[in-house]
Amino acid sequence: MSDSRAIGVFDSGLGGLTVVKEIVKQLPNENIVYFGDTGRVPYGTRSRDTIRKYAIEDENFLLSHDVKLIVAACGTVSSVAADTADTLPIPFVEVVSHSVKSAVEATRSGKIGILGTAATIASGAHKKQILELLPDGEVYENSAPLFVPLVEEGWYSAEDVVVLNTVERYLKPLLDKGIDTLILGCTHYPVLSEAIAKIAGDGVTLINMGVSVSEYVKEYLENNNMLNSQNGGKTSFFVSDKTDSFRNIASILLGEEIDENKVKQVSIGTYDEGSTD
Amino acid sequence: MSDSRAIGVFDSGLGGLTVVKEIVKQLPNENIVYFGDTGRVPYGTRSRDTIRKYAIEDENFLLSHDVKLIVAACGTVSSVAADTADTLPIPFVEVVSHSVKSAVEATRSGKIGILGTAATIASGAHKKQILELLPDGEVYENSAPLFVPLVEEGWYSAEDVVVLNTVERYLKPLLDKGIDTLILGCTHYPVLSEAIAKIAGDGVTLINMGVSVSEYVKEYLENNNMLNSQNGGKTSFFVSDKTDSFRNIASILLGEEIDENKVKQVSIGTYDEGSTD
Repeated sequence: MSDSRAIGVFDSGLGGLTVVKEIVKQLPNENIVYFGDTGRVPYGTRSRDTIRKYAIEDENFLLSHDVKLIVAACGTVSSVAADTADTLPIPFVEVVSHSVKSAVEATRSGKIGILGTAATIASGAHKKQILELLPDGEVYENSAPLFVPLVEEGWYSAEDVVVLNTVERYLKPLLDKGIDTLILGCTHYPVLSEAIAKIAGDGVTLINMGVSVSEYVKEYLENNNMLNSQNGGKTSFFVSDKTDSFRNIASILLGEEIDENKVKQVSIGTYDEGSTD
Repeated sequence: MSDSRAIGVFDSGLGGLTVVKEIVKQLPNENIVYFGDTGRVPYGTRSRDTIRKYAIEDENFLLSHDVKLIVAACGTVSSVAADTADTLPIPFVEVVSHSVKSAVEATRSGKIGILGTAATIASGAHKKQILELLPDGEVYENSAPLFVPLVEEGWYSAEDVVVLNTVERYLKPLLDKGIDTLILGCTHYPVLSEAIAKIAGDGVTLINMGVSVSEYVKEYLENNNMLNSQNGGKTSFFVSDKTDSFRNIASILLGEEIDENKVKQVSIGTYDEGSTD
């Protein structure tokens, strides 16, 4: 048995491309449909109702492309709108719970750090889930508002004095608490992995949400005989707005050049709750 | 003769508070009404039609507060929507043309630099106006996407290694061309003045758009007998959205603590073209 349908991945913007990168590494023969809601990014500062509405539209868009499984590569949707997937006819995987499981498995001291956007840290989603699995654990968090602009400017080298000093400033309070595991709580952050590892040192395990979720997706597809056995490995990209900087930023996050002509723009607002009935 | 009505100032967000700071310095007895369109920031990436619509709503909102003069403290509105003010019953002043005049007066070598957001630099507005006044001038531009996030994070000290290295990276290409005058082409940037001056050196005059426009407003009100002669000096703040970080960021830009309770939230979309008829 096999399933040649694509894996659907969505995010509020382009950060989810770091998740696509890891899925391609783990499952090079799978086809992928990516939707980035670049016209309505960021989700983190919006109301709960709006986030839920957007999540449903994103899921409906991917369903319209006949995907076999949906990955929410968006921390905000994972935190506050995961239940919008309860009525989906296909499996749904989100990044927060899987990265939390990876962190809880990795820690020896029980001291886990989280870096994220201000909205993600304020949501407390990772922390809550960690303490459910590890009631005696200690969780230390910090928001890192400059990480996304640094990545999008292409400043992520582990030799760059601006990058290293910025990483150190955000990470030091967590290192001072003795964390041995660090969740990179925003999909942009894996681009800074090398710089973060340099400051964190060998004693700290970095949790990349894209790696955690890809390992789970691989296992799930294998266990359910849903791997693609035909010729595959094609990724299709859709966004709700294409800005001048799109190609540069997408290439940084995906880790390879993206052909802008192969990226289609969609009117996401038309995929509302009634559209797939 | 005198005129006790307030001066109206608007911007797409909170950056215009650096302009308010300079107006207060120049004209401490004037009342000011500030509107920051924080719910729809940034304007720079939006279509021309949308920017014009927003500008008209912002102007109508200030008119509804019976102001005697309107300052567009927004580079984007100044560049692409200044003519929306043609039908206003009161004088209208925008930041781009006045900072350009200051720069042209200040330069000796004719080599003028501009730092701005990606959208402002792409608009070419400052450059076009400089070359109209100074056809033999040389204009060198660079976008500085990290400046706004740095300021909003509170990282602007001229002793901060991240700040100084970031400033140097954006400014060096312009210094290498021999500029003797630098327009700070975004209202957030004056917060970084000390760091920018440290890297630029004594030979470069910095042009703060808020200073240029305040000097002009002072002169205009004096010449037209429109200064306030009653007890004044009160500033009222209005925004279209209040985020958790509002107070911190507003205080950084204004250069003094802002009392959040005195800031009112308004539904700006109701101030459309017909609303003042």
